[in-house]
Amino acid sequence: MKVYLGLVHHPIKNKLGELVTTSVTNLDIHDIARSCRTFGLAKYFIITPFVAQKELVDSILGHWEQDKANAFNPDRQDALSIASCVDSIETAISQITEIEGQPPLIAVTGANFDSFDGDISQLTKKIEKSNMPCFLLFGTGWGLHPTALLKADFKLSPIISKNAGGYNHLSVRSAVAIYLDRMFGS
Amino acid sequence: MKVYLGLVHHPIKNKLGELVTTSVTNLDIHDIARSCRTFGLAKYFIITPFVAQKELVDSILGHWEQDKANAFNPDRQDALSIASCVDSIETAISQITEIEGQPPLIAVTGANFDSFDGDISQLTKKIEKSNMPCFLLFGTGWGLHPTALLKADFKLSPIISKNAGGYNHLSVRSAVAIYLDRMFGS
Repeated sequence: MKVYLGLVHHPIKNKLGELVTTSVTNLDIHDIARSCRTFGLAKYFIITPFVAQKELVDSILGHWEQDKANAFNPDRQDALSIASCVDSIETAISQITEIEGQPPLIAVTGANFDSFDGDISQLTKKIEKSNMPCFLLFGTGWGLHPTALLKADFKLSPIISKNAGGYNHLSVRSAVAIYLDRMFGS
Repeated sequence: MKVYLGLVHHPIKNKLGELVTTSVTNLDIHDIARSCRTFGLAKYFIITPFVAQKELVDSILGHWEQDKANAFNPDRQDALSIASCVDSIETAISQITEIEGQPPLIAVTGANFDSFDGDISQLTKKIEKSNMPCFLLFGTGWGLHPTALLKADFKLSPIISKNAGGYNHLSVRSAVAIYLDRMFGS
């Protein structure tokens, strides 16, 4: 099972449900790359249409490719080597299609979908049955904008614990870690 | 099952294994509070002996208690209300003992223990059998210093995926999310 992960900064909803572009944050790059590397994902796409944001990501990734940074913390360079920045969800899909020879099955995550298609074990079955790669999309801000959901083949059910009375406001970094552990954890 | 979580900034190891105190970071406060709230933990202790760091934490927590911040994002205030800052592991244990009427069973986490006592399901069984509260400790930096491990009743096995060839350098934020999901996720 080959899984690609995308962290989407556009198209995103703000608190009022309006279409916005969120800022890339340093810790999203690091934490999510480390989770992707731990659970054996194929690639981690940081998705933003802003050239200045792409330059920022490239400069952070470039820092960890330097000999000094690598000597200090080789594990971090190892994790960040699977991360790259692209300008749109479509560009990421094109890259995956080129690598895999077929387009991916697109799965989306969100804390407040009106309806969803199933949990991680049902998604895993669907991927294995289809023999397709999977592209797992996570939103930032107040979640993926409806226009991003139109592309989805599978909407994942949210992470809610019985203990919390319905509270499900995890950070995207925590949600990524939990979904990947449920998918690949031993 | 009542579980308390501690994020330890002292005593911590640096890269060379030396005893150090790490800095508190804003995102550790937020992400881990949100995970603790999602999975129904009793309390989240941020542990640092430095008064200036405690003042920083208190000012961050205080910000989210203001009416304006609460009106903008009431879910965040909800999560942060279970967080507080204490000066040592011992102080946190005293507070738990006072609340619960008995000292907690202390469980520690780490990516590179020489030996460990079991996984989350074995810890859960032990807690339920003992009918004690649990205090789950996470290290920052390069992990909990050996002097912190002396207090432990249970060493948790690390999070490793079969897919990653032994790579297990998750962020503490991701590790917390995964352990709590394994313990309380539905």
